[in-house]
Amino acid sequence: MPEDGRNGSQPLSHTVQYRVIYGDTDKAGVVYYGNYFRLFEIGRTELLRCRLDLPYSRLEEMGVIFPVVEAYARYKASAHYDDLLEIETCLENNTKVSISFSYEIRRGGKLLVSGLTKHASVDPTGRLIRIPQAILEGLAAR
Amino acid sequence: MPEDGRNGSQPLSHTVQYRVIYGDTDKAGVVYYGNYFRLFEIGRTELLRCRLDLPYSRLEEMGVIFPVVEAYARYKASAHYDDLLEIETCLENNTKVSISFSYEIRRGGKLLVSGLTKHASVDPTGRLIRIPQAILEGLAAR
Amino acid sequence: MPEDGRNGSQPLSHTVQYRVIYGDTDKAGVVYYGNYFRLFEIGRTELLRCRLDLPYSRLEEMGVIFPVVEAYARYKASAHYDDLLEIETCLENNTKVSISFSYEIRRGGKLLVSGLTKHASVDPTGRLIRIPQAILEGLAAR
Amino acid sequence: MPEDGRNGSQPLSHTVQYRVIYGDTDKAGVVYYGNYFRLFEIGRTELLRCRLDLPYSRLEEMGVIFPVVEAYARYKASAHYDDLLEIETCLENNTKVSISFSYEIRRGGKLLVSGLTKHASVDPTGRLIRIPQAILEGLAAR
Repeated sequence: MPEDGRNGSQPLSHTVQYRVIYGDTDKAGVVYYGNYFRLFEIGRTELLRCRLDLPYSRLEEMGVIFPVVEAYARYKASAHYDDLLEIETCLENNTKVSISFSYEIRRGGKLLVSGLTKHASVDPTGRLIRIPQAILEGLAAR
Repeated sequence: MPEDGRNGSQPLSHTVQYRVIYGDTDKAGVVYYGNYFRLFEIGRTELLRCRLDLPYSRLEEMGVIFPVVEAYARYKASAHYDDLLEIETCLENNTKVSISFSYEIRRGGKLLVSGLTKHASVDPTGRLIRIPQAILEGLAAR
Repeated sequence: MPEDGRNGSQPLSHTVQYRVIYGDTDKAGVVYYGNYFRLFEIGRTELLRCRLDLPYSRLEEMGVIFPVVEAYARYKASAHYDDLLEIETCLENNTKVSISFSYEIRRGGKLLVSGLTKHASVDPTGRLIRIPQAILEGLAAR
Repeated sequence: MPEDGRNGSQPLSHTVQYRVIYGDTDKAGVVYYGNYFRLFEIGRTELLRCRLDLPYSRLEEMGVIFPVVEAYARYKASAHYDDLLEIETCLENNTKVSISFSYEIRRGGKLLVSGLTKHASVDPTGRLIRIPQAILEGLAAR
């Protein structure tokens, strides 16, 4: 952490492994393009659980959910059956009512797919709400 | 209805078409074995809607749901990408608290996959309930 | 076609219907965000088949495939179980080695989700190739 | 191994964990019935890899694949979002041209779903072949 006390230069990130199954692939022999969004979900869920101690199921109990409002993926190379992938998720800057994550999926260090998701902070009725203080503190304390 | 008063010799059935997409297939170039259960769902839903005028969403509003308690599939031949499949669903005998469907998936008359699902009749809390009279009448009136 | 001979002011588009099943939804009661990319595939496949008379399976036989290199979705409102959705797909400008589609998914005229996919033109070995003349003519003749 | 030289009384089994994601669930708030077949695939793949040192991808390279010819599941209780499940897979008796697996999916010791899959032994062209000796020895040596 630099002398002046700033933090945040270090983005919060977390990496999990994922083994590709037959059910993820399509007839081209590679992971179906839409299935990477499942891997993104695994990535951000485990970041919340492991780095912020905030399982998404607990957020739901607190009355806040984070539905996806935008999702993007860029496919550079293909993941294949039985590949052991690394899913690296970074917490991007959040506003008072939204939060974003970026993703990089690699196999043995080689970048295959990168992506982004943006999530709104809403209550169970779907109304936009401020991200609860407990969560903001978790995000800030990283 | 024949003179002797028998009915029911004719099982209630309904056929819908389904076009296989990339997302249904796996690296073997055929529909992934678990994805046929999606096709079974399409089959029984459209039978309820089209033959009994009982959209499943209306059943839910009536306070009864039919979770799957058993599912079975037998794979005789493969469905491929872009195949136009016929999903034939038959309503099998029901008890007071359960209902069963059988399925045959064909391509151009050739049988590819057959299956069965059995469903319990439960209320929204998951408690076993008698199938509502309105539904039984729909089933009987076929 | 206007007097000055310009065409192309009219984008090529095609609309298909899709009925949401249980298997598309998640515990929030809405279509899972990653499953819309299946709907995008249905949309572009049927545009190629119905408007250009170019089933994707025929393109594969011609030795050209169009893997997705970028995919984007913006979620404005949720699709629910049993909704009958309209998937409108537009062919966007293509380069010599890539082609793009845009999507709008509606329920009863209300826009729920919009999206984009960009596809490279490659041969079966994955090497970038020019889009075959027959396809370009199909695209131009629209 | 007991003195009398019998073996095989102990079925070969293997257990892996699986964390349920949003993408596995449906609007009933539980894992979609068809998605358990993905978990069965994870179970049998890891049994082959971890207990027999036979990754399925290696079997493919050896020229033998094991397409599913029958699949069955019995649903006793529901798995929910974020549940950490145990998938226990047992190798059942094999014939010369087929192999079967049974499955039990638990949460904290409670049985939720049990199942069975039967697989044919075929070559890449789909012709039924004897299970290769190397695999039979792996199965016998357990």
